Amino acid sequence: MSELRKDPLTNRWVIISQKRSARPSDFRVDSIHKEHSFCPFCEGHEDKTPNEIMAVRTQEAEANNSGWSVRVIPNKFPVMESEHELQRYGIGMYDAMSGTGAHEVIIEHPQHKMNIADFEPEQIHRVFKVIKARITDLYKDERLRSAIAFKNYGIAAGASMSHSHSQIIALPVVPRNLKVELEAAMSHYKYKERCIFCDVIKQELITRERIVSENDQYLSFAPFASRFPFELTVIPKTHSYSYIKTDDASLYNLALMLKDVLTRLKVALNDPAYNIILHTAPNTTKRPGNPSYWSSIEFDYHWYLEIMPRLTKVAGFEWGTGFYINPTPPEEAASFLRDYDKYMVMDHK
Amino acid sequence: MSELRKDPLTNRWVIISQKRSARPSDFRVDSIHKEHSFCPFCEGHEDKTPNEIMAVRTQEAEANNSGWSVRVIPNKFPVMESEHELQRYGIGMYDAMSGTGAHEVIIEHPQHKMNIADFEPEQIHRVFKVIKARITDLYKDERLRSAIAFKNYGIAAGASMSHSHSQIIALPVVPRNLKVELEAAMSHYKYKERCIFCDVIKQELITRERIVSENDQYLSFAPFASRFPFELTVIPKTHSYSYIKTDDASLYNLALMLKDVLTRLKVALNDPAYNIILHTAPNTTKRPGNPSYWSSIEFDYHWYLEIMPRLTKVAGFEWGTGFYINPTPPEEAASFLRDYDKYMVMDHK
Repeated sequence: MSELRKDPLTNRWVIISQKRSARPSDFRVDSIHKEHSFCPFCEGHEDKTPNEIMAVRTQEAEANNSGWSVRVIPNKFPVMESEHELQRYGIGMYDAMSGTGAHEVIIEHPQHKMNIADFEPEQIHRVFKVIKARITDLYKDERLRSAIAFKNYGIAAGASMSHSHSQIIALPVVPRNLKVELEAAMSHYKYKERCIFCDVIKQELITRERIVSENDQYLSFAPFASRFPFELTVIPKTHSYSYIKTDDASLYNLALMLKDVLTRLKVALNDPAYNIILHTAPNTTKRPGNPSYWSSIEFDYHWYLEIMPRLTKVAGFEWGTGFYINPTPPEEAASFLRDYDKYMVMDHK
Repeated sequence: MSELRKDPLTNRWVIISQKRSARPSDFRVDSIHKEHSFCPFCEGHEDKTPNEIMAVRTQEAEANNSGWSVRVIPNKFPVMESEHELQRYGIGMYDAMSGTGAHEVIIEHPQHKMNIADFEPEQIHRVFKVIKARITDLYKDERLRSAIAFKNYGIAAGASMSHSHSQIIALPVVPRNLKVELEAAMSHYKYKERCIFCDVIKQELITRERIVSENDQYLSFAPFASRFPFELTVIPKTHSYSYIKTDDASLYNLALMLKDVLTRLKVALNDPAYNIILHTAPNTTKRPGNPSYWSSIEFDYHWYLEIMPRLTKVAGFEWGTGFYINPTPPEEAASFLRDYDKYMVMDHK
């Protein structure tokens, strides 16, 4: 019999369908990449991209030359641009704004590597520090209310380049899903004076049935009301509302944790396409018209990474209703990923 | 320059990206169907499906025999089942419910036809009357709070059978997207004593730039803050909160309108996969604990069909944020669909 579960944060109901129960072997598909004959992201091809915004250099060199380990450039086809003056206007009964913001690409390795699961932890650590530096810098622009860092890996996840990269989109608004989270977190805090995420962490550590792995500072688990098979949350175990307040030592532990869970997914599901989204506090610079959910954000919100393997097709029902049908109970997903080494076979690299 | 637009109903911001502007020719892909050697939905194969719930019969015959024009059966792999007693319970800090509900399949033609665009209007009319009858019947069960009728056409839209069919899922909750709509509609009504959908219709009829077609009773247009290229709304022009209150003469006009817009999509975009979702009032049977958004629903809500061609991949950014990037401004989509016959070519059937 299937069960309906409610996500405490978004109030979204999900059907966990036992009848359609799907094991990793039902999903094992090779991840497919879009390969171009020439990759502008590889070291030595710096002149084929827009000028860099920043780069971590391993040897002294001028900007836009070789000798870097992580490099940030503007997106060649940006959806948002910072040069535009921010304008808010009405069109008849409707509301609109200029596309003022930023759209950046973080090239995560000088060589043509694809999956961040195969990186050294030190390199993942560098990427995390660069993301922190970029969001910190973007938040100096008071027009920008939020910055979303995300990663598309594989064509099924929307990646148009195979060379490992992430993107940051900075917006003059707070996107709806983040707003819903912020409001839910504030409302829980008002009522209980506790962070709802800290409550979830405590609950998961009691039952442990949805936990995938754990280190000194981070926890990974399959959320109670997972929308998708093998959806995962990676979250700091102690309260922290903003990714950009995280110190470098902690980001090294995050790198270790990310490598751990991405390796589990790669082995258990045969290198699936996936998305990673960083959920973190919006730009809390004081300004007129601050929304109410700013008031206790340091205490009520908690940043995390959302990891979504792209294994199933999303049909009309999900789009139209915001109601998801998940054929793999998160307890089973977590159990498979805890014992992922059972899925390693001799011919698997 | 791109523009951010806010959907008045969901408060969702969408980036309308001019730089990535995409015309129909950028999307023209053949719709792909999953074909099985044997189709259990075809007339004469009634013994290969679960027993029918209802059927429109053109000749007198016992149930589960030939001679029908529309046939309703339970889904063979239901995500919800009505036999289960409705139970609400907590699991630690989390909330859950039994999977009590219904999951039905409406087989829309006795022959192996695929796209409802190719049906006679009379047959589409029969399908609409059957959907009305089924939702009316399901709403007699007070446990069921909402019924979602939807259609997946083509593999990219999530269809597992190519034979034309729709589905109804009845739920013991109101799905999140519908709840958001109901609350927005109520709040607009409280403030202005007008239906927000009627306001949108009026606005669209003034500018006409997003209108695709119109008949005596229905309007089709590309919504101002379309999330996807060629997304369409089909809506009754006069106020009507519930699809199941619509009379049969009006449903015939709806059949004409649906055939019209699906034919336009088929020709202009070369038979794309698509989803259709019916947005209508939930089960308003009086019961204890009625939510506040029940109070003025007859006046503030307005049913409609949402049509979404599946032309683009949805990436991590959209999943994580609820924030969409649409490369085709709805004004351009509507203009293409108004002049769809320009896209007809000699070898096109």
